[in-house]
Amino acid sequence: MNDSKHPLSLGQQLMTRLDEAARCSLPGGGVTRLFCSEEHRRVLTLIGDWMRQAGLTPELDASGNLVGRNDRALAGERTLILGSHQDTVVEGGKYDGMLGVALPLQALQALKDEGIELPYGIEVVAFGDEEGTRFQSTLIGSRALAGTFDPASLEARDADGVSLGEALRDFGGDPGAISSLARAPEQVLGFCEVHIEQGPVLEHRDHAVGVVTALTGIERHRITLTGKAGHAGTTPMPGRHDALVGAAEMVMEADRVLNATQELVGVIGKLDVRPNAVNVIPAEATFTLELRSPDPRGRRVGREQLLSAFANIAEARGLVLDMQQTYSAEAVDCADWMIEALEAASEECGQPAERLFSGAGHDGLAMHDVTDIGMLFVRCRGGLSHHPDEAITAEDAEAATRVMMAFLRGFDERS
Amino acid sequence: MNDSKHPLSLGQQLMTRLDEAARCSLPGGGVTRLFCSEEHRRVLTLIGDWMRQAGLTPELDASGNLVGRNDRALAGERTLILGSHQDTVVEGGKYDGMLGVALPLQALQALKDEGIELPYGIEVVAFGDEEGTRFQSTLIGSRALAGTFDPASLEARDADGVSLGEALRDFGGDPGAISSLARAPEQVLGFCEVHIEQGPVLEHRDHAVGVVTALTGIERHRITLTGKAGHAGTTPMPGRHDALVGAAEMVMEADRVLNATQELVGVIGKLDVRPNAVNVIPAEATFTLELRSPDPRGRRVGREQLLSAFANIAEARGLVLDMQQTYSAEAVDCADWMIEALEAASEECGQPAERLFSGAGHDGLAMHDVTDIGMLFVRCRGGLSHHPDEAITAEDAEAATRVMMAFLRGFDERS
Repeated sequence: MNDSKHPLSLGQQLMTRLDEAARCSLPGGGVTRLFCSEEHRRVLTLIGDWMRQAGLTPELDASGNLVGRNDRALAGERTLILGSHQDTVVEGGKYDGMLGVALPLQALQALKDEGIELPYGIEVVAFGDEEGTRFQSTLIGSRALAGTFDPASLEARDADGVSLGEALRDFGGDPGAISSLARAPEQVLGFCEVHIEQGPVLEHRDHAVGVVTALTGIERHRITLTGKAGHAGTTPMPGRHDALVGAAEMVMEADRVLNATQELVGVIGKLDVRPNAVNVIPAEATFTLELRSPDPRGRRVGREQLLSAFANIAEARGLVLDMQQTYSAEAVDCADWMIEALEAASEECGQPAERLFSGAGHDGLAMHDVTDIGMLFVRCRGGLSHHPDEAITAEDAEAATRVMMAFLRGFDERS
Repeated sequence: MNDSKHPLSLGQQLMTRLDEAARCSLPGGGVTRLFCSEEHRRVLTLIGDWMRQAGLTPELDASGNLVGRNDRALAGERTLILGSHQDTVVEGGKYDGMLGVALPLQALQALKDEGIELPYGIEVVAFGDEEGTRFQSTLIGSRALAGTFDPASLEARDADGVSLGEALRDFGGDPGAISSLARAPEQVLGFCEVHIEQGPVLEHRDHAVGVVTALTGIERHRITLTGKAGHAGTTPMPGRHDALVGAAEMVMEADRVLNATQELVGVIGKLDVRPNAVNVIPAEATFTLELRSPDPRGRRVGREQLLSAFANIAEARGLVLDMQQTYSAEAVDCADWMIEALEAASEECGQPAERLFSGAGHDGLAMHDVTDIGMLFVRCRGGLSHHPDEAITAEDAEAATRVMMAFLRGFDERS
């Protein structure tokens, strides 16, 4: 390959770059890099260098994205957009987000070194914000490109009271010009993102990479059960209306249904009891139910099954049940042609092309509004993410970079 | 009797005082008055006034009790101790505890108004803490008098991290002097407490008052389950170690065992989840288990059955289980002579003298270590307690005050 020019393998070069990027972090465990922070500024300097080495021209856009374009993109040709987000959760890892910025740049640089010129426009984007750590509001950069950015989010404030609009202006962005970033669908060939899996499927199957079929839909509910408080020593067991016992039966039922249903995951992650005292029969239990599925019908069936079971449990126990949906985001499918192209590239590189769905949201959720999307997952250790111990191997980094190179070489303008 | 001086009946006067005391509460439903709080301070001002009107001299003791003594007690004569606790559960009622403070003061004031001077020492105590709402540790004041206070409980901390020792010092108590409060058994004639029944027996039999034969044994445990946090969207259902699902199974099992076992009641009243976030698999669940039975053997069998079931559930789910007993009090009997004296007083007032058992613990559990105890129960509506709707009638308040007056008039130094 290019061993004479690069004594390190592509995977090793990529790991070195990811280690460098991880040093652009607030102090503390793992990596903490917030939108429009000093660490964000430092990492963009690094990414700008990588872009130039890959033959791209970097530019900070009005929404805080760093966008690197090849000559065809600069000349106004239609573009394939690659990229992911630069930001992290508090004390996150080195790979969530940054892998999807660094890997395509590594692949483009390797293709350039091989003397291959891609016959279409390329943009690599380091989105400013996907995690929503600093301003709660998420997907700012990808929504800007998709033309779905809501100017109201400029009023969101961080923990120090700084608004998103102020932070962005200080960073060199231009809140008033964000609407002009919206891409015309006919100018975009597609959006492809590389990301760590954040789950254990690839590790269990011993595969380096996987091709994503869809990004999950998510819904959240708040369930409140009201029973009757009473003295725990003097109220006979039979006449009780214990809200926690009712909630416990619902938690068990949710666990049973979710384990028995393919392609549906969920959690009761938050539960609060009132009055929450050692010697008082619980009068009220409030909990959240989150359901995720790539299949809207499966999610609906699961929801109806659970909420009807909850209603029966509440009635049998003489508890008053209140259920409110608090959040909903529909699943989005990756484009068939993108899935097939990523599979073909994987096979060309001798990597088994496992199909899987993404249980987490990504920049593709927003980009789907303007163009076809695809995603390549990379195996991560123990399925762990959003944690300082997040890890991938240099071998998998190498394999995924080779798959991206094959994908870019084989990419054919379809639309 | 004193209708010319008191246009209100004794029962009505007592109800008015209990309404006044109930206004010393945190905002929210019902009455919330915690140990060493601002509300505790306010209610002691009120109780101090009542004590003076009853001919007693109030004094805040080192453990946070307000103690009112008649002249004979101040002169060092042996005392009959009356009283109950000032504190409440979160969103409790007006009568649990406070009735046992206000009623004997009302009775003593009525006797004084009748010109009767009791020929023995009297102390009326408003114990600082019996419910254990703020510091988990309970019976602080009555244990101080019984000489069984454990200085280690001074390290217990409330939800804000304030220790019992610090709170007590700020309140005007003196943690280092608590041991000096211990009464010599030969100095105490007995301890008699008036309390709402907190159960449905008197209401079912249509009796205003009842005489207690024994107080239940109580034990409490703190159970911590540790699983593994993880992204709720990307971690497949089968490999999860969800601490809340494990806790829910334990809540269901406890409910099943307690419903199936005679003379054993219990509750899981407090449960906290970590990190308690809508989209994170619960990593830890901590809950309390309280068991009560008049029969020590039955309580032991129930405990062993439950704790062994909990261990099995934790093992099957790959959760780490930690169980700590946090409290234990053996069942105690009321003294026969006290039962008979209360029965005689009831009969003298034309009240049927129902004997019954207390499913709740009371300050008498601790006082039993230093002296003979007796208890008079007052009918409460629906057997409800620890609830804003806790209620008694002015007629029953009057009847119970008359019984207490007869008991005090007829009381004879026996020991």
